[in-house]
Amino acid sequence: MNRIKLEELSEHYGKEVTVSGFVDSVRNLQWVQFIVLRDETGKVQITIEKSEEKNAELVKIVDELSAESTIKVTGTLMEAPKVKLNGMEIIPSEIIVTSRNEGELPFNYKDISTVNLDTRLDNRYIDLRSEKNVMMFQVQSDFIRYMREYLYDHDFTEIHTPKFIGAASESGSEVFEVKYFDRKAYLAQSPQFYKQMAIAAGFGNVFEVAPCFRAENSNTSRHATEFTSFDLEFSYIDSFDDVMNLEAEMLTYALEKLDKKYGDRIEKMFGTKIIVPKCPFPKMALSDVYKELEERYGYKVDDSEKTDLTTEAEKLTFKLAMDKFNSEFLFVTDYPADKRAFYHMRDENGVLQGYDLIWRGVEITSGAQREHRYEEICKNAKSKGLGKDVEFYLDFFKHGCPPHGGFAIGVDRLTMLLLNIPSVKETQFLFRGPNRLEP
Amino acid sequence: MNRIKLEELSEHYGKEVTVSGFVDSVRNLQWVQFIVLRDETGKVQITIEKSEEKNAELVKIVDELSAESTIKVTGTLMEAPKVKLNGMEIIPSEIIVTSRNEGELPFNYKDISTVNLDTRLDNRYIDLRSEKNVMMFQVQSDFIRYMREYLYDHDFTEIHTPKFIGAASESGSEVFEVKYFDRKAYLAQSPQFYKQMAIAAGFGNVFEVAPCFRAENSNTSRHATEFTSFDLEFSYIDSFDDVMNLEAEMLTYALEKLDKKYGDRIEKMFGTKIIVPKCPFPKMALSDVYKELEERYGYKVDDSEKTDLTTEAEKLTFKLAMDKFNSEFLFVTDYPADKRAFYHMRDENGVLQGYDLIWRGVEITSGAQREHRYEEICKNAKSKGLGKDVEFYLDFFKHGCPPHGGFAIGVDRLTMLLLNIPSVKETQFLFRGPNRLEP
Repeated sequence: MNRIKLEELSEHYGKEVTVSGFVDSVRNLQWVQFIVLRDETGKVQITIEKSEEKNAELVKIVDELSAESTIKVTGTLMEAPKVKLNGMEIIPSEIIVTSRNEGELPFNYKDISTVNLDTRLDNRYIDLRSEKNVMMFQVQSDFIRYMREYLYDHDFTEIHTPKFIGAASESGSEVFEVKYFDRKAYLAQSPQFYKQMAIAAGFGNVFEVAPCFRAENSNTSRHATEFTSFDLEFSYIDSFDDVMNLEAEMLTYALEKLDKKYGDRIEKMFGTKIIVPKCPFPKMALSDVYKELEERYGYKVDDSEKTDLTTEAEKLTFKLAMDKFNSEFLFVTDYPADKRAFYHMRDENGVLQGYDLIWRGVEITSGAQREHRYEEICKNAKSKGLGKDVEFYLDFFKHGCPPHGGFAIGVDRLTMLLLNIPSVKETQFLFRGPNRLEP
Repeated sequence: MNRIKLEELSEHYGKEVTVSGFVDSVRNLQWVQFIVLRDETGKVQITIEKSEEKNAELVKIVDELSAESTIKVTGTLMEAPKVKLNGMEIIPSEIIVTSRNEGELPFNYKDISTVNLDTRLDNRYIDLRSEKNVMMFQVQSDFIRYMREYLYDHDFTEIHTPKFIGAASESGSEVFEVKYFDRKAYLAQSPQFYKQMAIAAGFGNVFEVAPCFRAENSNTSRHATEFTSFDLEFSYIDSFDDVMNLEAEMLTYALEKLDKKYGDRIEKMFGTKIIVPKCPFPKMALSDVYKELEERYGYKVDDSEKTDLTTEAEKLTFKLAMDKFNSEFLFVTDYPADKRAFYHMRDENGVLQGYDLIWRGVEITSGAQREHRYEEICKNAKSKGLGKDVEFYLDFFKHGCPPHGGFAIGVDRLTMLLLNIPSVKETQFLFRGPNRLEP
């Protein structure tokens, strides 16, 4: 196994190289054959002169070669200023066809302008072949990689909490039910309780990147029944400012690294720029956001709706954050405590110690200092009418638990915002929604 | 938030430090009070002289302090050669109690010799407080971290494939059924098909670390209904030797890094050494293994059982691998093709292009070159009686697919073997089995 990735070819001029990939196109002219070869890092032209006797075997192979087949090519890499594709070509001595495209593709993935999304998702193995999609998932992989890198540098331990849970508890959204031998199990909507168990056990700082499951029968560009969540929790904080600061620093770290590696290519391919933010990110109380939206942009909404950001208000915060702070990110704080999860801490005046983070006008995180005091968390649970199902969780706080906080980020949504993709249906490897379980 | 982790204290002698953690123990003597403070990185002694007037407030706090509460301490770090615990102590100026242990622990996690495993698992938030368990999950986190590091260096993209699947397909083991709105879904037993979809889409090299679900009603030390799988697949291989070589190199890379970071502490805490292996790992055909087990150790078994390693034979291969190759690892090849998954490649003579990797006498991986040729994979599926449920999978190979291979490693099993833990019930953060869904 000695293939050279196409992006690294320029280190090998004048030498024999072996490359592998898909046949992106093949042109069979009177005197010459051209193959454009594609791998996950780039493309290169292979040139076969028909007149040369030693090429007889190769010409026969290329005569029968169809686009989207895969081949392995050994040959000499030449500088070729006339070749538009990177100014290079490979003069092959051997071509091995490693797999054959058996017929017409379900659709042309190189021009999806007239292809509907369902056709693309039905044939996702073809849809993902586009350079844009291959790159999107490389970027997503590295986004997570760099966020993890930041956390490792801050002594976080990665944990793997169970997705099977014994009781359907916590939030209002629906949970999926599983037939579990002679009883029922449920699928975790979030690792929240178990992250906090690790904190109570003295793990210090923990994170998890794993699927979450939500049985919401809604079809929007941002929701899925299964999604990848980047979750963390850390100990010994003084206030939820520590949580916001860590999140801002982690995102800044990752975006800076992504910009260095992909900035130009993202701009070219997706028509959008990575803006590396500055820490700390700006913060505003929810009521101040509404006040300024009205003052600046004449956005009015009934007071009864001001317990959360309306979808329209959420969008407008992008403009507000840019105009007021020159920032794509905005922390919104001081949500009404009674609208938030019982495990978010309230201060002595009942003020919620939590926040949402809005990026480019879309909420990407809810975070908070968590309630770690046994009496208080029991009181909060009771006031939400939560009983037996959360007892096991309340136990975690009975025998000492460090002050702590944390948040969760949806990876698919993050990718959508970074690359300006319209929907998580495209940023999930395989989207799962109420009407989609295939392929 | 300015806490110093206890393992880093020795950089701060003579200075004011702030530390946070659990009260590991408190001793209240006539003239002096001692607290041993514990965080996830170590322990330190806090010393309060009762006779000093300025300590009056602190003495009162410590009088009411119970073990397992959490505190935040500010004070001066002093060298103290007489103190057995690291030869240092903190002379505090402030102690803040951040949470209180409200009573007796469900069991004494510091001496589990008489505690049964179910009690420990029922109260896992307490069980995990032991230094051994905290460290076990730090090691597990880093094991995965270093394997990922190796893969990033080899241009692997991390993917997140769906756990909801539309049809219960593939292997013989049972799948879990989910109520999915007005139809049924199933939980993925492995990301095998979807890893291969990424390959067919031209992603090059991919990996995933995610939960897998198996509805096997069996209770052994190695099985769980949910477990974390480290899965990978990569393109353009020449043979399954490439797969074995990559696995050997990845494990060697990770074990070397783990040994450097944890070697001494693992030996002290778990009584076992990390042996950094040498590449390539030894390989033996299954029939040769049986031959040598009989010749060397008199182990005989009926020919009918020789289609796979018996549990006893698997154990004995540890001795064989050590005696013959001085290696803890052994690749076993040439399993009968008809006993293996249909997507494993067979060569032109029908010989399986796959392997198992045995570490310390336990199978940790099945790997293979995969069948990527459309006609062949269809033939294989048919010969196993697989029909409609795998059609969507067979489609992946219709329009060109690179030669590729891969494997999966169970993270919990890997941790069990590395640290010489008797069962995955202890190496899973929260074990899930037929009789255990809680906490």
